[in-house]
Amino acid sequence: MDQDKFIEAGIINIGDEILIGQIQNTNASFIAQSLTSIGVHVKKIMVVGDEKESILSAFEEMLTSCNIVIVTGGLGTTNDDMTKDCICKYFHRELMENKSVLNYLQSVIHARSRTIPNTVLKQAMLPVGSEAIANEIGFAPGIWMEYEEKILVAIPGVPQEMQAMLLKVLEKIEIHYHINQHIIHKHIQTFGISEALLSENLSVFEKNLPPCIRLAYLPKAGYVSLRLTGYSSSMQKLEAELEKQISHLSHYVGEYIFSYENKILPELIADKLKERKQTLAVAESCTGGYIAHSITLLSGSSNYFKGGIVAYSNEIKCNVLGVEQQLINQQGAVSEEVVMQMAKNVLQLYNVEYAIAVSGIAGPDGGSVEKPVGTVWIAVADKNNVHAKCFSFGNGRERVIRQSATAALYMLYKLLTSIKNNNNREVGK
Amino acid sequence: MDQDKFIEAGIINIGDEILIGQIQNTNASFIAQSLTSIGVHVKKIMVVGDEKESILSAFEEMLTSCNIVIVTGGLGTTNDDMTKDCICKYFHRELMENKSVLNYLQSVIHARSRTIPNTVLKQAMLPVGSEAIANEIGFAPGIWMEYEEKILVAIPGVPQEMQAMLLKVLEKIEIHYHINQHIIHKHIQTFGISEALLSENLSVFEKNLPPCIRLAYLPKAGYVSLRLTGYSSSMQKLEAELEKQISHLSHYVGEYIFSYENKILPELIADKLKERKQTLAVAESCTGGYIAHSITLLSGSSNYFKGGIVAYSNEIKCNVLGVEQQLINQQGAVSEEVVMQMAKNVLQLYNVEYAIAVSGIAGPDGGSVEKPVGTVWIAVADKNNVHAKCFSFGNGRERVIRQSATAALYMLYKLLTSIKNNNNREVGK
Repeated sequence: MDQDKFIEAGIINIGDEILIGQIQNTNASFIAQSLTSIGVHVKKIMVVGDEKESILSAFEEMLTSCNIVIVTGGLGTTNDDMTKDCICKYFHRELMENKSVLNYLQSVIHARSRTIPNTVLKQAMLPVGSEAIANEIGFAPGIWMEYEEKILVAIPGVPQEMQAMLLKVLEKIEIHYHINQHIIHKHIQTFGISEALLSENLSVFEKNLPPCIRLAYLPKAGYVSLRLTGYSSSMQKLEAELEKQISHLSHYVGEYIFSYENKILPELIADKLKERKQTLAVAESCTGGYIAHSITLLSGSSNYFKGGIVAYSNEIKCNVLGVEQQLINQQGAVSEEVVMQMAKNVLQLYNVEYAIAVSGIAGPDGGSVEKPVGTVWIAVADKNNVHAKCFSFGNGRERVIRQSATAALYMLYKLLTSIKNNNNREVGK
Repeated sequence: MDQDKFIEAGIINIGDEILIGQIQNTNASFIAQSLTSIGVHVKKIMVVGDEKESILSAFEEMLTSCNIVIVTGGLGTTNDDMTKDCICKYFHRELMENKSVLNYLQSVIHARSRTIPNTVLKQAMLPVGSEAIANEIGFAPGIWMEYEEKILVAIPGVPQEMQAMLLKVLEKIEIHYHINQHIIHKHIQTFGISEALLSENLSVFEKNLPPCIRLAYLPKAGYVSLRLTGYSSSMQKLEAELEKQISHLSHYVGEYIFSYENKILPELIADKLKERKQTLAVAESCTGGYIAHSITLLSGSSNYFKGGIVAYSNEIKCNVLGVEQQLINQQGAVSEEVVMQMAKNVLQLYNVEYAIAVSGIAGPDGGSVEKPVGTVWIAVADKNNVHAKCFSFGNGRERVIRQSATAALYMLYKLLTSIKNNNNREVGK
């Protein structure tokens, strides 16, 4: 394969639920991003319904204009799942039993106490000449079919299964095409500045970027991640160029950067706490368990996270968390004093080194002139200190919840890094 | 227009940023949903890059197979905006100045203090024979082009502009095709049966469905929702036919159906608790706050949800939740006895009418031969009773967490409905 020539890919997503607009086609963007990341050029994305004719004409069109076609969906065992049939028809193949898939399915049926119908074993039948791509989460194996220098890959539409299997597909594509263009991604995470303002501050930087490097803005809930992607056949040159550009970038927006790692805040916090063998607890009001959930989504979190209290009513803030009733009466539940008591008390009650507490108004109800919807007090505490800060996140219940969680985790992370680096607390400023 | 014949539409989204996976194609799902809502059948969605050749071939393909084609993107005035050029080329038209668009643009330039470049006036040039669709937010007018009984509509890709203009497009489509077709969706929610088994049980039902009604399987985290969609010019007939089909469907899978409402479990639970003015608390181990989060995502949840305890470590189960240390030593934290104590204790501690408790192994670590990863005990309690049940959710940390939450909410919902209906507890069987 000529290295200067792009490998072109097409993506076909099969599913009526996308065509009626019931679900977002998140699979397409995930696959597009993944293919782009290994240097494959995505030429076209198509969504078609669960109809043979549409699927076959999509195969025809995509295989004519692209080197690789990735198909998602239609691999179940129900009547409206017809991807496999279409592959057989298009390539004039029969189905044949794949022994390793069959063994896998039988072992799963055996292992689960819950009844799995034997119709699932149909999944072991694959088009002659194709390779199976193992599905370690669900039942339907993926299908890798090479034909006249073209490749068609079919994987399930269930996002979790698709994502796990796509990793294997990307590896196979890299091997197949001897892709040796190096691609390096560098991540720069910022907090406290909007995407619009970032892009204004970085407009000169962006204009001066060499053509082999691209800047992407990846806005998340409550913060913006930047990604520099470089392409080159020389790894060494590319690394050096990227380092140079990152130092330019820091010149413009350095004060907002909190990490150069491609990790989410709960991961960054996990690293610090595990390193120090210290523990954490949370006291949540308006975030209602979301911070605890964000932390416990990570495997191994039980090593440093003891748990928390969701104190959604004032009664619980007093009776379970031990906040003084008088304080709530005087200052209101959404106040510096209350959130600091919440943090200190949960730290003690859970016997941990660090605590986070959040109390705010997620809305749409509960706002006032003084404390409008989106007002959120956040405190972080260790054994010696507690700091609190007030944020205004505006409207949108789910947005307020997510942004509050991000801000709380950010405050904790800053506390953890300030201790290590210079003992100078920056939190709450 | 024959009312029994579907009007078929295609959607073309133009934009490199979608092909590299940088942004979600939210425009496609918005347009698909809108078209579906007025009875137009979306046949295909295509995403192509900012290249003339790709755009023209997309026009060709879509106009061949669909009655209406909606195009978004590529209507700006920069070099990579070529939708208008492609329309002219495809339909062999010249550009002509549209007076009303010109007037509008001039008035905007005049009104805004901010300098707007005169290049914007280029937007007044539209293909001969087309109609302009007014853009009240931005500069680029939409283009409505009728040609040999087909319609091509081009609107900007900026979601806000697109959404406002699509309303006008839908109106014009309804007038053009004299649409008076009714569409009704009916939802049937099932728990405790896999999609594969459901579809096996419903295969006869599905085969006998009249052509105007379609069945869709919508698998969620831990349960499967079914949707019957009917199309007809007579609302009354359609309602009657759908009722009939739902009763047929219940005949096959009735025991798994828990709701005919298009609501998620936290909403169904909210309705019951608000109706009775009763309250709820949770004690979570492996779900780590996710149940509390699911409940508090709903606005108004503070009316019936007091909060909960995330007892992620055994120490907290004992010291905060008051579970007996001996019980954990003897039975293990993931056991019927412990989860029942968790439920009873949080009920008392939070002084609520209902409590949920969950203790399980989300993995990937912590499993054993007796209690493999995915083993989860769930208890629901009211003032008089507590019931527990064991589930095996298999691998996948996030999956186990979500399925546990669904099962726990389901158990609570069944408890709430059984009390109302016949005082016969079905939970835990």
